[in-house]
Amino acid sequence: MGAMDPASTVVGFVGTGVMGASMARHVMRAGYAVRVYNRSRSKAEALLAEGATWDDTAGSLAASSAVVITMVGYPADVEAVYFAPEGILASAKPGTYLVDMTTSSPELASRIARAARERGLHALDAPVSGGDRGAREGTLSIMVGGEAEDLETLRPLLGTMGKQVVLQGPAGSGQHTKMANQIAIAAGMIGVCEALAYAQRASLDPDTVLQSIAGGAAGSWTLSNLAPRMLAGDFRPGFYVKHFIKDMNIALESAAALGLSTPGLALARELYGQLAEAGGEEQGTQALFRLFSDRRA
Amino acid sequence: MGAMDPASTVVGFVGTGVMGASMARHVMRAGYAVRVYNRSRSKAEALLAEGATWDDTAGSLAASSAVVITMVGYPADVEAVYFAPEGILASAKPGTYLVDMTTSSPELASRIARAARERGLHALDAPVSGGDRGAREGTLSIMVGGEAEDLETLRPLLGTMGKQVVLQGPAGSGQHTKMANQIAIAAGMIGVCEALAYAQRASLDPDTVLQSIAGGAAGSWTLSNLAPRMLAGDFRPGFYVKHFIKDMNIALESAAALGLSTPGLALARELYGQLAEAGGEEQGTQALFRLFSDRRA
Repeated sequence: MGAMDPASTVVGFVGTGVMGASMARHVMRAGYAVRVYNRSRSKAEALLAEGATWDDTAGSLAASSAVVITMVGYPADVEAVYFAPEGILASAKPGTYLVDMTTSSPELASRIARAARERGLHALDAPVSGGDRGAREGTLSIMVGGEAEDLETLRPLLGTMGKQVVLQGPAGSGQHTKMANQIAIAAGMIGVCEALAYAQRASLDPDTVLQSIAGGAAGSWTLSNLAPRMLAGDFRPGFYVKHFIKDMNIALESAAALGLSTPGLALARELYGQLAEAGGEEQGTQALFRLFSDRRA
Repeated sequence: MGAMDPASTVVGFVGTGVMGASMARHVMRAGYAVRVYNRSRSKAEALLAEGATWDDTAGSLAASSAVVITMVGYPADVEAVYFAPEGILASAKPGTYLVDMTTSSPELASRIARAARERGLHALDAPVSGGDRGAREGTLSIMVGGEAEDLETLRPLLGTMGKQVVLQGPAGSGQHTKMANQIAIAAGMIGVCEALAYAQRASLDPDTVLQSIAGGAAGSWTLSNLAPRMLAGDFRPGFYVKHFIKDMNIALESAAALGLSTPGLALARELYGQLAEAGGEEQGTQALFRLFSDRRA
């Protein structure tokens, strides 16, 4: 299959939550025919009103789509929609492209790719970073694992959702890259929380401290974007604590399988576990600051 | 004392290592008369050739300077040059300005400020970030603790060395701010090392991974500037491991005194301790990557 003509290409979305809905909207606006399925239909209503077509199951959606994009919650959800008896793999017509954009397990991505190949299907793992804002603005970073040829076929489609679409290697490599991303964030978040808590405890004005340090060697996206929210006590979710914990669990499991010691990641997982126990699961990841601003040594 | 006329103002530098020499050069080029003292005279020769005047002791330098700037190694060195019987505090004429730009203990900075006040001297703590390059280019970030009036008098002088000179609060606040800076870097460095090691272990191309992740939420100065050196095996010192360990020791002590728990900083200190034991003391801080790329869980 060569380049796809949007007008004659049906793209099915499984999962129309905050991320999936924004992404499906970009695809639809680029002229593709979009079908949608979501566990709770209410979250798909806006897209349906804009012209998307509803399917009652992921299987029926897969049977009528040339490209199936999945953006669901947890690896268990990914496994279910792909491997269920009447799921995506069983229902898709030969030649269909399957793109899992959920942040999920590299090992599961490899299994999906193998199963897809056996059935004459093309699978890519393509998790994203950039959050709800990146999804809304179509500026996601899309990290792709799979065959180069398959990515080239889908590049125009993926390009409607992201400004950066990079092939990272064979199946699973997109997920591995996303894990590297989350690992860098995990320990980095601890550093930012500790630095701000230290500044407060030393009776400094943290905003003035940021003025001195954000532009130098201590600078980071987290320091520039999340530290101000931490200081303002704004713990509303950009990225949910519960989802970050999911990602860290995958990363820890995957690192262990690769024989890599990740004490910083393990510490972050432990601290976020404490935050979740303290009722922070539905807050944004910047809420980790609560642990440091609240407690004493 | 109001604004200082460079031509009639003698500025003494105690400590003309890599950082101090570059900083003294900027001051000299701005037209100030510069005197220098350093433990080993050889490191001051270049400055002497450019017109600086040599003093045989920190005390004699202090006695002949309107402003004394110290840029030495460890808090013990700071304590010695200030508090020795014939040191800076004992030798400076009333009205002299004392500026410690060494990264040192906030508690020591407060003690120097108290002792200075008792003798009719003006003291500021003013550690910097930006490294040897920032010193060479005069683009340091200078974090100041002390009296606002004293800083305003010295602002033109400090402005020759840094592009950003920010008053952070009373005596000790400059050092506290520098500690916040180092604390943010410490855990962040672990995250970057773990992310890169994970990428390697997962058989990804780490440079391609950086392409996907450096511009997003995982982005940081460390990831953009030190990760490429880590991957190239370039562990030459920009900032020495031994100096970072010194800073982390101060930060841990200071955090404990403030009653703050800093598990990320403690982990970084432990890992850098292992690196130093493995012979990494004289390498740059990015050498932490060696621990992660070499070992298995």
